[in-house]
Amino acid sequence: MSKSAISPIRAENYPEWYQAVIKAADMAELSGVRGCMVIKPWGYAIWERVQNVLDGMIKATGHDNCYFPLFIPLSYFQKEATHVEGFAKEMAIVTHHRLINKNGELVPDPDSKLDEPLIVRPTSETIIGEAMARAVQSYRDLPLLWNQWANVVRWEMRTRMFLRTAEFLWQEGHTAHADEADARAETERMLEVYRALIEDYIAMPAIQGSKPESEKFAGAEDTLTLEVMMQDGRALQSCTSHYLGQNFAQAANIQFQGKSGSLELCHTTSWGLSTRVIGGLIMTHADDDGLVLPPKLAPQQVVIVPILRDETAREAVLNYCDKLATDIAAQTYAGEAVRVKVDKRDEESATKRWNWIKKGVPVILEVGPKDIEKDGVAVTRRDDVAGKKTFPARAEFIAGLPALLDEMQRGIYARALEMQKSRTRTDIKTWAEFETYFGKDTDGKFDEAPGFVRAPWSGDEAATEAKIKPLGVTIRCLPFDTNVPDHAAVPSGNCIITGGAAKYEAIFARAY
Amino acid sequence: MSKSAISPIRAENYPEWYQAVIKAADMAELSGVRGCMVIKPWGYAIWERVQNVLDGMIKATGHDNCYFPLFIPLSYFQKEATHVEGFAKEMAIVTHHRLINKNGELVPDPDSKLDEPLIVRPTSETIIGEAMARAVQSYRDLPLLWNQWANVVRWEMRTRMFLRTAEFLWQEGHTAHADEADARAETERMLEVYRALIEDYIAMPAIQGSKPESEKFAGAEDTLTLEVMMQDGRALQSCTSHYLGQNFAQAANIQFQGKSGSLELCHTTSWGLSTRVIGGLIMTHADDDGLVLPPKLAPQQVVIVPILRDETAREAVLNYCDKLATDIAAQTYAGEAVRVKVDKRDEESATKRWNWIKKGVPVILEVGPKDIEKDGVAVTRRDDVAGKKTFPARAEFIAGLPALLDEMQRGIYARALEMQKSRTRTDIKTWAEFETYFGKDTDGKFDEAPGFVRAPWSGDEAATEAKIKPLGVTIRCLPFDTNVPDHAAVPSGNCIITGGAAKYEAIFARAY
Repeated sequence: MSKSAISPIRAENYPEWYQAVIKAADMAELSGVRGCMVIKPWGYAIWERVQNVLDGMIKATGHDNCYFPLFIPLSYFQKEATHVEGFAKEMAIVTHHRLINKNGELVPDPDSKLDEPLIVRPTSETIIGEAMARAVQSYRDLPLLWNQWANVVRWEMRTRMFLRTAEFLWQEGHTAHADEADARAETERMLEVYRALIEDYIAMPAIQGSKPESEKFAGAEDTLTLEVMMQDGRALQSCTSHYLGQNFAQAANIQFQGKSGSLELCHTTSWGLSTRVIGGLIMTHADDDGLVLPPKLAPQQVVIVPILRDETAREAVLNYCDKLATDIAAQTYAGEAVRVKVDKRDEESATKRWNWIKKGVPVILEVGPKDIEKDGVAVTRRDDVAGKKTFPARAEFIAGLPALLDEMQRGIYARALEMQKSRTRTDIKTWAEFETYFGKDTDGKFDEAPGFVRAPWSGDEAATEAKIKPLGVTIRCLPFDTNVPDHAAVPSGNCIITGGAAKYEAIFARAY
Repeated sequence: MSKSAISPIRAENYPEWYQAVIKAADMAELSGVRGCMVIKPWGYAIWERVQNVLDGMIKATGHDNCYFPLFIPLSYFQKEATHVEGFAKEMAIVTHHRLINKNGELVPDPDSKLDEPLIVRPTSETIIGEAMARAVQSYRDLPLLWNQWANVVRWEMRTRMFLRTAEFLWQEGHTAHADEADARAETERMLEVYRALIEDYIAMPAIQGSKPESEKFAGAEDTLTLEVMMQDGRALQSCTSHYLGQNFAQAANIQFQGKSGSLELCHTTSWGLSTRVIGGLIMTHADDDGLVLPPKLAPQQVVIVPILRDETAREAVLNYCDKLATDIAAQTYAGEAVRVKVDKRDEESATKRWNWIKKGVPVILEVGPKDIEKDGVAVTRRDDVAGKKTFPARAEFIAGLPALLDEMQRGIYARALEMQKSRTRTDIKTWAEFETYFGKDTDGKFDEAPGFVRAPWSGDEAATEAKIKPLGVTIRCLPFDTNVPDHAAVPSGNCIITGGAAKYEAIFARAY
C-alpha cells in the first residue's frame, strides 16, 4: 500500500474517509449541539466562493436579495395541506420567550409560554408567500424575483457533516409569475444557473432531470434536480428548482390584477442550494491525500511555501516569494485575479506543503535558496500529488499559470465524468439483473453502492417503491436528455421494475 | 409649509416620520411574526454594502469567517455568571422537535420534548468559546481571529424596524489572545475598523469612548463604543467592541500552553455591528423627502431616468441613456467603479425621479430628447432636492462625477457633524441646568431629546443612575479624547450629577 495522508483510505472505509478528509482539511467539526456543525475558516471560505459565484449569477438573472423572518408561526404551515404533510415532522419549535432562575437553575419561565408556537424555518415558502401577497398588486409587479441567503433547520436524526445537518446554510429563491409558462421558464433558468455553478465551477458532472411524483418537494407540481455521482457510486441531489403551481399562491393569497382587470392567482417557484454541495464536492473530488479543489472554486489557487531552513537566506527567500505572489496575482484566470498566498507560518516547509495538499489547493509552490539561484519554482499539482514535482523557470511558470489552472479544472471534471459514465449501467434489462446489481444489503446501512442504472420505467410509483425500497434504491430523476420533450428519446424496452410498458427513462441509485 | 415627499415631516412627528421614510423607500416592513421584519430589496442592498465594506476590512485585519450553531444549549449560559445575569432574560427557547397532527391541528408532540432546552443565540460568546477551547492548544495558535455573519434573536418587547427587532442580522467577531495587552489592542483595532465604516462610508460622525460600568456588555471587562447623534438629539450606539478579560476563557476553558510550557487562560474579545446601523443611517441623514444615502454606501450612486413621452424618440433616448450608463460605470470613485443604473420601468419619469429621491440615490439624471439635442443631462442632487436642477454638458458631467460624489459624501458628513456639535452642550455646569436641559418628561416616552451634554463626572454610578434615569438619560460613553490616557484632558469642574469631585468626562443623552 502506498503512503497516503488520509486514513482510512476510500477503499477501506468510505464514510470514515469522508470524515477524515474534513478533519485533515480543518473544514468543519461537530459542535456540542446535536446535529449542528461548526464550519471552520477553510470550509467557510469554500462556502463563500460558492456564495460569491452563485450570488452573482442570481443577480445577473434579475433577482433581488431580501431577508425574511427566521420564525414561522405554526398556523402558516397549516394553510398548504401538501406542504404540511411533507414538512410537518421534525422541526425546531420555539414555545417560550424567557428564562427564569429557579433555585439557581435557569429554566423556561412558564409565564412566557407563547400563544402560538413558532417554527424555526425549515424552508420559507409559507412566510415569503405572506410577503409576496403584500407586494403583488398588479401584473406590473410581476415577475417578483426574490432570493435570500439564510440558515434553516430540519431536525434530522442521522446527521453527517455538510451532507445532512440539523441546521444548514443555503440560498432559497422565491418568485411569483403571471402565468404557468413564465414560472416554468424560471425553474429551468435557475436550474441552468445551478448547472453552471456545479459543472463549470465545482466541476461535478450533473444529470439534469425532474423528480418522479414520490420524490417531489412537498407542495410542488414539478421538481427539477441535478444529480451527481459520488465516488462510492451513490447519488447526491445537489440542488432543486420547483414549479409550485398555484398551491402556495392559493394558501397565501398571492393574487394580481391582470391587464383585463380580473384578479388572478400567481404561479410561484422556489429553488435552493445549500452547504450540502460542499459534501458533494468532497465526495466527488477528494482522494486518499485529502481534499481536491477545482481551481475556479478554490479560495486559494496557489500557495507559496518558503523554505526557510537557511537563516542567512531568510530575507531573500521571503522577498522572492512576495514578488512571486504579486506577479501571480496579476494573472487572470476565468475572469478573476489569481488567488495566491504566501504561507509564512512558523512551521516546517514539508508540513506546510502537506497541509495545503490536504486542503486541496490546486498548485503548491516551494521556494528555497536553490530555486532563487535558478530563478525557478518547485511545483506540486494537487491533481497529481503522486507525480514528480516539476521545476520550471519562474517567468515560464507565471505565464503558463492560467493555462495550467484551466487544464486542472477540465481534468478534474473529466475524471468525475469518466467515473459517472463508467459506473452508469444502461445494459441492465431485467429485474433479476437489477436486483443482482444493487445486491442484497446485509447490514441495513446500504453503505456500498455500485453506481447508477439508467433504464426504461413504467411510471408505476407504488409498484416501483415496493420493489426498490428494500434495496435502498430510489429513482433519482427522469433525465431531460431522453424524457424532454415528451419522453421522445426514451429507449425502447419494458419497464425494468414491473416488466410492463415503459413510458419514461429513469435513473435508479442509492443516494445521500 | 413647503411640499415634501414624506408625511409627517420630522418636525411634526419624528417617530412616525422614521417609519414613513422606510416605507417610502421600500426598505423593510413588519412581518406577521411578532417583532420580526422583512428586509426588502432596497434595505437589503444597503446591508449588503455594509457587509461588503466591513467584511473586506475584517479580512484585511487578519480575521477569518466561520459559522457556529444557531442553537445554544441552556447549560452553556449558566457557565458565565455575569453573562447569564445580563442576557438570561428574553430569549427564544426551543423545547420540542416534532409536530403531530392532533384532531386536524398541528401541535408540538409531547414525546419530542428536548432533554435540554436550546436557546436561539442572542450572541455567541458561549458557543464560540467551546469551539475556541478545542482550537487553541499552544501559543502558536494565538491570536485566534474569528468572525461570523449571522442572525441573532433577542425577545424585545418594544420593537422598531432596524433599530430594535427580535431577530436581527449582524457580524460578531470573537478572538482569543495570549495576554491582556494583545486583546485590548484588538478591541481598539476593531473599533477603528468600525469608525472607518461609520464615519468614512456611512458619514455618521461618531464619538469614541468606553462604557461606564453599568452600561457594559454582560461579562465584559471593558466595552468600547461609537455613539452617534440622531436628528432628534438622541444617541445611537452604532457598534461595540468588548475586552472580555479571562471571564469567558474561564467558563469555556480556553487555555494554551505558553512558551515556558505552563497552561494559561486566554484573554478574549468580541465585537459586533448589526442592521441597527441602517436605522442610524436613516435617522442621521434622511430628510422630509426620504432617505439620503452617502455616495460611498449607496447601492446605486447614479440613476438615469429616461423621459419617454415622445414615442418617436424612445429608441434614441434609451440608447443615449445606455451609453451614458456605460461611460459613468467606467468612472471610479473611492476605489470602486461608479454604481449606475438606467430605470427603464414602465412609469412616468416624474414618478421615477421621486421614487429614487425617496430611496436616497445621490445623483438622479433625467434624459429626454431636448437633453440629447444639447448633448446634456438634467441633474438632481439628493443632498439638495429643493435646489434647482442643473443642466451640464454630458462630457463635463461625467468627468466631474467622482468629484461631485466626493463633495456630497463630505457635505453629508459635515452637516451631521455640525448638528452633533451644535447640539452638544459643554457649558452646562450644575444639576439644575442639566435637569432643565433634558426637561421633565410628560408622557413617559422621552420622545424628544435636545442633544448631548458633555460634562465632568464623579464615577459614582449608583447616585448618577438614581438622578438621571427618571429623566430617561444615560451615560453614553466616557469619550476617549478627554479620558484617554488616564483622564488627563478632563476639564476641571465638579461632577454635574453629584456635585462631588469629578474624575471623568462623560457624554449624557437619551438614547435608542
